[in-house]
Amino acid sequence: MAARAQLKPAARVAGRRQDVWSIVNEAAAASPKQPIVNMGQGFFGYNPPEFIINAAKAALDQVDCNQYSPTRGRPRLKKAIADSYSPLWGRKLDPETEVTITTGANEGMLSAFMGFIEEGDEVIIFEPFFDQYISNIEMPGGKIVYVPLHPPPNGDKQGTSAADWTIDFAELEAAITSKTKMIVINTPHNPIGKVFSKDELLKIGELCVKNSIIILSDEVYDRLYYVPFTRMATLSPEIERLTLTVGSAGKNFYATGWRVGWLIGPPHLIQYVAAAHTRICYSSVSPLQEAAAIGFEQADQENFWEGAKKEMKGKMDQFNTIWKELDLPFSDPDGGYFVLVNMAKVKVPADYPFPNQVKDRPRDFKLCWFLIQEVGVAAIPPTEFYTDQNAHIGEDWLRFAVCKEDEVLDRAKERLRDLKKYIES
Amino acid sequence: MAARAQLKPAARVAGRRQDVWSIVNEAAAASPKQPIVNMGQGFFGYNPPEFIINAAKAALDQVDCNQYSPTRGRPRLKKAIADSYSPLWGRKLDPETEVTITTGANEGMLSAFMGFIEEGDEVIIFEPFFDQYISNIEMPGGKIVYVPLHPPPNGDKQGTSAADWTIDFAELEAAITSKTKMIVINTPHNPIGKVFSKDELLKIGELCVKNSIIILSDEVYDRLYYVPFTRMATLSPEIERLTLTVGSAGKNFYATGWRVGWLIGPPHLIQYVAAAHTRICYSSVSPLQEAAAIGFEQADQENFWEGAKKEMKGKMDQFNTIWKELDLPFSDPDGGYFVLVNMAKVKVPADYPFPNQVKDRPRDFKLCWFLIQEVGVAAIPPTEFYTDQNAHIGEDWLRFAVCKEDEVLDRAKERLRDLKKYIES
Repeated sequence: MAARAQLKPAARVAGRRQDVWSIVNEAAAASPKQPIVNMGQGFFGYNPPEFIINAAKAALDQVDCNQYSPTRGRPRLKKAIADSYSPLWGRKLDPETEVTITTGANEGMLSAFMGFIEEGDEVIIFEPFFDQYISNIEMPGGKIVYVPLHPPPNGDKQGTSAADWTIDFAELEAAITSKTKMIVINTPHNPIGKVFSKDELLKIGELCVKNSIIILSDEVYDRLYYVPFTRMATLSPEIERLTLTVGSAGKNFYATGWRVGWLIGPPHLIQYVAAAHTRICYSSVSPLQEAAAIGFEQADQENFWEGAKKEMKGKMDQFNTIWKELDLPFSDPDGGYFVLVNMAKVKVPADYPFPNQVKDRPRDFKLCWFLIQEVGVAAIPPTEFYTDQNAHIGEDWLRFAVCKEDEVLDRAKERLRDLKKYIES
Repeated sequence: MAARAQLKPAARVAGRRQDVWSIVNEAAAASPKQPIVNMGQGFFGYNPPEFIINAAKAALDQVDCNQYSPTRGRPRLKKAIADSYSPLWGRKLDPETEVTITTGANEGMLSAFMGFIEEGDEVIIFEPFFDQYISNIEMPGGKIVYVPLHPPPNGDKQGTSAADWTIDFAELEAAITSKTKMIVINTPHNPIGKVFSKDELLKIGELCVKNSIIILSDEVYDRLYYVPFTRMATLSPEIERLTLTVGSAGKNFYATGWRVGWLIGPPHLIQYVAAAHTRICYSSVSPLQEAAAIGFEQADQENFWEGAKKEMKGKMDQFNTIWKELDLPFSDPDGGYFVLVNMAKVKVPADYPFPNQVKDRPRDFKLCWFLIQEVGVAAIPPTEFYTDQNAHIGEDWLRFAVCKEDEVLDRAKERLRDLKKYIES
């Protein structure tokens, strides 16, 4: 018994319930519809553009590109990011002090929390949230305070917009205490597709200035917006002084497996993010940093950003015609590549057999399992991004990722037509 | 003042003294000998072999190789590692439960500590230690207990062997308490080049079995040994049950910038390392995992492992002839690519001007600065790998990395001849 106790894991990794990705994988394996069409996880179904792939291959031929990068990142990438974002910031960013490279946006956010959060500090996040925030905040001992984004009141009955998911600012203000150290914003938002309005950001930013709260603005979908997009850091010098902006080469360049991310922010914040990153990963993947640098350098002349946005919006609109066909309401996203569809009208037979890992979860987990079995299309149950207390808000929705090849989207639509017989009209 | 307090960094990243790498960089920039010959950091001065570079380029053409890897790693790499290590383990390793991929060995070790260490748990490490261990153990709240490796008694007067750095087993046993949760072994050892003998490992292993201590065996230089090499995990089933073995594609394949590492161990330990890794980095770089897989698959037919070992031993022996010329004793390494040279005989002029960040550090920092200024060769001061209390053990040594092109080693030797005038005979 003593021996067994000694080998026990740390609480931070012990005994979590099964994660959504493995449930989806198990559902896929059990489905009679093989192969299933996977619109669950937000990986791209196609490659980065050729000029970036070629840049990665060229980097592999350079000795220094295969060896340790400086801990804060390869100078060429830091400069390329500063050059690309300076016009968006409206001033010249300093690549040496205001940019630091991380192992994907995920480890970048962890580095920010590790850089500033001590045991008992509070971090405000909006619900629904990207699930990795939770463990990343809890690892350094942070306490999470949740503020809900309120769904459109008629989202189960009619088509709505991502902009209809709203903040109750009285709730937000009430969540702030003397221990509030950071707040996390995500715009464009996963899973909602909401692009926070300038007015919303200003109100949040001013509350943070008033209370000296560090703003971690997760903007990994920052090149995919279909309405005007405002960046938190650009609102005022007082807000910028508190703001760390997170970016992702994986999301920008269709390469989620490259693990190259970055943070932009004032030197008095960036230096500690970089210090934490050094202690976590030491440095980040070198040849793909070089490729990302070339991606930024050549994006404009390749008309890449405009093309990417137009292409993704096209996929989104093309795919979403199926919901009109099925008369299922969806929340039309203003950014990113996820769409939330309201499945309140889908009637799952009362005696439908669900496995143990699903039957006690909210209805969206059952809908997810049911869709995979009956029509062979995988989506993500969004209550994975909610606390138990607020799970009811998300339990009628499913999240579909449209960053897939057009023929995959067509196949998904063809299959989703089989859902018709389960839909009340 | 309130505002300023709110923005203050977490203690874990605040106020460390300047790290050795930036001191070396500053010394290099200040040196009249331009460009300096850098034998400091252990990056390779040459590229991975062509069959591995080609594998990486081919991976970049595959859509799935550019997207998220499974959190525990790409199946092909896990299988290739299991296949490569099974003969060394003397049994078939299960790639699904006994191998997990990490973002370099560094984040792999952090994942192990995050998986098992709670506030106040103790971790034993030998001095000198790889510097990243410290922050990696402290991040989850671990307390470090140091046990010195005792240097050869005549190391300042005569050539010695890395095997002459010894463990006092009474000291090791005295360091174990009821809170000891893990011990870190590093073999082949950085910076000493010691390959722990089977007898030493058995004694350590048996102490760990007796006290149920998890053994984290950092074997990142595992393909570069010049005496018989024993792997901790292979000593007995009781020891294996407690042992996590860390490996590195960066070290194995000359690509320290690739950030692909792994841990091998029993499922009851690996599962929590993998769970921690998921929370830290989510997943690791995908295309370079594929390249590393192909590296393992083809290494034998390319005679890569034997060639690598022979080549590195050749570089080591060729370089070390300079110390015989200069009559400076060195500790001949039994593995890895670092050599420790004893500089007790080097007389630094009493009035030599040292900058602030060096003048209050131990003598090896001064030797390092002096060498860079006077002969233009960079090495690493090993007291960076010691606690202040034991720094005196390392203060007459410098560490040189020989994983450089032959002409670089020749240029270093040519320059080091200028040291003659400062050496007492």
